[in-house]
Amino acid sequence: MCYDGAWNQNRKDGIFIMNNKLVGAAVVGQSGGPTAAINASLAGVIRECIRNSDTVTELYGMYNGIEGFLAERLVPLYPMFAKEGGFPDEEKLDRLEVTPASALGSCRKKLPKPADDPVFFENLVSLFKKYDIRYFFYIGGNDSMDTVAKLTEYLRTSDYEMRVMGVPKTIDNDLMGTDHTPGFGSAAKYIATEMQEIVRDCAVYTVKAVTIVEIMGRDAGWLTASAALPNLVSGAGPDYVYLPEVPFDMDAFFRDIEAAFEKHPNVVIAVSEGVRSADGRYVGEGAQSGAADVFGHKYLAGTAKALEIAVKEKFGCKVRSVELNLPQRCASHLASAVDLSEAELCGESAVSAAVSGISGSMIAMKRVEKPAYRFGYDICCETKDVTEIANAVREVPREWIVPENNNVTDECLRWILPLIQGEAKTVWKDGLPSHFVIG
Amino acid sequence: MCYDGAWNQNRKDGIFIMNNKLVGAAVVGQSGGPTAAINASLAGVIRECIRNSDTVTELYGMYNGIEGFLAERLVPLYPMFAKEGGFPDEEKLDRLEVTPASALGSCRKKLPKPADDPVFFENLVSLFKKYDIRYFFYIGGNDSMDTVAKLTEYLRTSDYEMRVMGVPKTIDNDLMGTDHTPGFGSAAKYIATEMQEIVRDCAVYTVKAVTIVEIMGRDAGWLTASAALPNLVSGAGPDYVYLPEVPFDMDAFFRDIEAAFEKHPNVVIAVSEGVRSADGRYVGEGAQSGAADVFGHKYLAGTAKALEIAVKEKFGCKVRSVELNLPQRCASHLASAVDLSEAELCGESAVSAAVSGISGSMIAMKRVEKPAYRFGYDICCETKDVTEIANAVREVPREWIVPENNNVTDECLRWILPLIQGEAKTVWKDGLPSHFVIG
Repeated sequence: MCYDGAWNQNRKDGIFIMNNKLVGAAVVGQSGGPTAAINASLAGVIRECIRNSDTVTELYGMYNGIEGFLAERLVPLYPMFAKEGGFPDEEKLDRLEVTPASALGSCRKKLPKPADDPVFFENLVSLFKKYDIRYFFYIGGNDSMDTVAKLTEYLRTSDYEMRVMGVPKTIDNDLMGTDHTPGFGSAAKYIATEMQEIVRDCAVYTVKAVTIVEIMGRDAGWLTASAALPNLVSGAGPDYVYLPEVPFDMDAFFRDIEAAFEKHPNVVIAVSEGVRSADGRYVGEGAQSGAADVFGHKYLAGTAKALEIAVKEKFGCKVRSVELNLPQRCASHLASAVDLSEAELCGESAVSAAVSGISGSMIAMKRVEKPAYRFGYDICCETKDVTEIANAVREVPREWIVPENNNVTDECLRWILPLIQGEAKTVWKDGLPSHFVIG
Repeated sequence: MCYDGAWNQNRKDGIFIMNNKLVGAAVVGQSGGPTAAINASLAGVIRECIRNSDTVTELYGMYNGIEGFLAERLVPLYPMFAKEGGFPDEEKLDRLEVTPASALGSCRKKLPKPADDPVFFENLVSLFKKYDIRYFFYIGGNDSMDTVAKLTEYLRTSDYEMRVMGVPKTIDNDLMGTDHTPGFGSAAKYIATEMQEIVRDCAVYTVKAVTIVEIMGRDAGWLTASAALPNLVSGAGPDYVYLPEVPFDMDAFFRDIEAAFEKHPNVVIAVSEGVRSADGRYVGEGAQSGAADVFGHKYLAGTAKALEIAVKEKFGCKVRSVELNLPQRCASHLASAVDLSEAELCGESAVSAAVSGISGSMIAMKRVEKPAYRFGYDICCETKDVTEIANAVREVPREWIVPENNNVTDECLRWILPLIQGEAKTVWKDGLPSHFVIG
């Protein structure tokens, strides 16, 4: 893995470049849904700040993202993670890396547009001044990059010099501008491992049965595609996977099941929570709560349940639905080592880029083909103008979904496979993973 | 760990003791729901048969339990697992041990009573004669011990000499006559690990929310009790656990949640799928399928879902339900090393006991307190008359449930904790666990 020391060469037009050395404190926050790798990125930010402590004089953690920052709920991280002599405390940071959920807590606050509410941003800046904060690192997904973009936009009109960087994270892998996102590989490893175990479990009986496994991913099918990874590795994968990128057709679905029954009595299906019929209605709509979060996302529930009922009615056989649910994003015990190291690198790179003078951008990963090394790729971090990234969704390419809309291609699986390699170095205590708790 | 070479000393009155050396083939089958340790028991049977191959001339695996045996779906296991020189193939057996689900497949066939259908048993014995089968090993739970008991009962009236042994397995830990059951420790480790991760995940937001996690266990609350293990180890466990052994009271449940909200905004609850109100009705009854299996068990679904709806109506806050579902019994990647080694020992002991002349019994584990060793206990295998075991359920003792019926005592957790120690030696291939497939 690498990043280019000459960050400036990677810049795009929208990115601020400030060449002076900027001395002051930094603040780091986590936002949006947790992932199994989000604390590895935090560990990367902490490590690189400590290494640059001549420039970054202190690093504050904000509890519960920007919301906590506004309430001045800050924790100085150097006293916790820097050892005498100014070295990072590797033991603590290693344990932080394999700790699930956001160690600093999270929030889902949407910032106003700077033009609509300049007072909001003036208050923010006065807090930055109060703590002499010159660096702002925000680890999150689309919505967090929206925060980074708005803060950057406001700062361009302000005389307060500050550098703002986004560190990507999302299990959904749906961020634009980066080859893939930290957090995705670990979720994919969890999903693929559980699917393989479920497929083995379902194979033990001889009676006809359909098992429908629902997988996270509102608009992008990357996680559902990962459910098919065992088909590439061991053959013990689901019969079909259905992605939200293509319309879901109930009659075709029934025909798929009939065809699978010709081969074996136990049919296993992976389905995205977000599958929709051709008219745009969610398959799980009946079971949907109707509620929407502050970003306008609708919460879905029960896609697999809705299909379970439909299949039971059609085939009269045993049908079971399984929602993999929260463990998809918090199963740190099964995190991918590749994912964790990349997540950390993104955190480190954000600090290094900001210290070099870059602002208003997100760290992105570029896949560098390198046949002899780690499943044929290496990762190079680069910076991307954050306005290109916020509020857009990257889907599974159409050519990676088979024409029948019921599976992904081997090319798709070979693209995902390198990201699930290696196992997290879990520290076990009394039979359970040991986590690092901040505060 | 140990077993007494002098098996006869352990016998009870109901157990057949045959002192002559009985030379012939053996057959082994798996029945009922899979566990993460059921193949470790199979590996134990295979290892010990190979070691006794002067007496046990061949070991057949029956596919899909007794059902497959009746259809003569048999696989000779010596050619697969014995190496030249008569040694067990340790690499294959180690990989079989960490393979989820029943490697030989399973069934749920209930045998008739010998008095009701002697022809059924005559057919069975003619098949035993055809393959010169003198040893019958059946790995399973209550229903499988029912099979062992009926076969034993019939053989007492037959002149065909044969030894029949049961090897316990069930994630539910509800078998009588044994300190605990192979399979339980691994399920408990999975549940405790996921609960700890879910509790961390739920703690990241500051808005009021209730997360209800549903755990397997129709009549016994051992698995649900295990959800509280993190409270003993790290403090990151659920606020409450509700077991099927005591009546569930919705008003008390609401009061419990109110009290938890006084302490923190994120309330996490573990609930058994089998909780019932004082009048005996299942809490999840509304969502229940109504179907029953051949043993008359009702299938439950949606206890957590039913509670989710009730809590949402009462508190109006964010409520989420999570069913841990199938991975509880098939998550081999998170199996307990103690559980796997005990499961294997039970398999070995069944063979050793049968070769010694014992029949009609199940291998049971006796906990021998031994303070300096492995969390203060050692395991000694003994034999139990199988008629004492079949068709009865062992519950969590009342004194291990707190008077408020909303948690288990530390004594209960300290009893479970030794069983989740150590991690399975998963073999990884291309980022996924590698399994051993028979046939």
